[in-house]
Amino acid sequence: MNTDSVLYEGKAKQLFPTDDPQVLRVVYKDSATAFNGEKKAELGGKGTLNNQISKLFFQLLTEHGVEHHFIKTISDYEQLVKKVSIIPLEVVVRNIAAGSLVKRVGLPEGTQLSHPVVEFYYKNDDLGDPLMNHDHIAMLELATPDQVGHMRQISLQVNDILQLYLEQKGLMLVDFKLEFGVDLSGRLLLADEISPDTCRFWDNTTGKKLDKDRFRQDLGNVLEAYQEIYQRLGGASHA
Amino acid sequence: MNTDSVLYEGKAKQLFPTDDPQVLRVVYKDSATAFNGEKKAELGGKGTLNNQISKLFFQLLTEHGVEHHFIKTISDYEQLVKKVSIIPLEVVVRNIAAGSLVKRVGLPEGTQLSHPVVEFYYKNDDLGDPLMNHDHIAMLELATPDQVGHMRQISLQVNDILQLYLEQKGLMLVDFKLEFGVDLSGRLLLADEISPDTCRFWDNTTGKKLDKDRFRQDLGNVLEAYQEIYQRLGGASHA
Repeated sequence: MNTDSVLYEGKAKQLFPTDDPQVLRVVYKDSATAFNGEKKAELGGKGTLNNQISKLFFQLLTEHGVEHHFIKTISDYEQLVKKVSIIPLEVVVRNIAAGSLVKRVGLPEGTQLSHPVVEFYYKNDDLGDPLMNHDHIAMLELATPDQVGHMRQISLQVNDILQLYLEQKGLMLVDFKLEFGVDLSGRLLLADEISPDTCRFWDNTTGKKLDKDRFRQDLGNVLEAYQEIYQRLGGASHA
Repeated sequence: MNTDSVLYEGKAKQLFPTDDPQVLRVVYKDSATAFNGEKKAELGGKGTLNNQISKLFFQLLTEHGVEHHFIKTISDYEQLVKKVSIIPLEVVVRNIAAGSLVKRVGLPEGTQLSHPVVEFYYKNDDLGDPLMNHDHIAMLELATPDQVGHMRQISLQVNDILQLYLEQKGLMLVDFKLEFGVDLSGRLLLADEISPDTCRFWDNTTGKKLDKDRFRQDLGNVLEAYQEIYQRLGGASHA
């Protein structure tokens, strides 16, 4: 097996095989993209920060018994993960109205939701990652009803864990996106990454955005925000 | 009560009060609109046809025990209905891929779905009638979870009844949109209309479109198609 030939290249990560068929190497890239790839930039250091931030979140989830694909980081910008077959759905959990929810339902940004809202989006760039209901998911056979139920349940559990943890760090968890995969033995595992690329974090006091919205909305100081998240989570300074 | 002052004016119908506070008069208009009102026309006779076609469908549903708002027609283009408070959701049931489903999930038009797909859309022109999942509906308090469950169940029942009936008339029921309301005693009733404005009907043999898609897609002979539906359902010729 040539472990240097990329298996899969996404917008923010590359996947490589390893000598262990059940393990992949993930390379976190510095590329930033938004609006289905229409906006692009290179942000030197983002890959390293997201690699480390994801590690911290996955370790936190391990402490709470959530099963995921992360094994360990092997360099500043690389980690090893369990090989899974990715379910082509993005699961979004929302606590506060922002992003596409504001456009969909017309609530002002920042509206506190009385209950977390869970959404499933079809991972399909050509279709613009459309919202799916349970019938759509069944129709396209993207996941079984059982898997959909488990993904929802695990996502809400992750929300509880992250929200409580981040509150102690002075951060609001506005919303986040998860992906899931099925490992070689058929187990459903949380996969992908958990980082300022895939979550919205707002400062509890000032409301300052500390996530990819700084890039999407041209707010500036993108990397500084990612760096601040890393430090608040207990990561070393990375100047 | 001034029974001549319009209570509500929609794109295709007007609602007027009557001397009975529990009864409204519906006037079916000849206006045709599509694409959230961007495309408009007057189609002389459409109102009369939809008034009569809706009557036939509501009578069919009565025979099958489905509760609805229709009482009786009182002229070519008018009917009396029970007064309900409309739930601001459009319930769409699909048997064959067409319209927005084709755009959302990328299936070719005409794809037979293995199971009916039910969708809920928020009746909100400003937002473009967005797709809602159950969490969105609960968040906006558009309907209770119980009401959502009943709307789904009744819609699937209506689908079974209409599909079987239309098949005998040489017609495929591609998809249709229902609306529901709550009457003064709190009962959930099927409301609005059932017509070529709100359903897609295709000829079983030729696949010819016999519904509002003829208007949306500039296929011509719009009224003739509505007339054909009326005649196939047993209505008198209306030349």
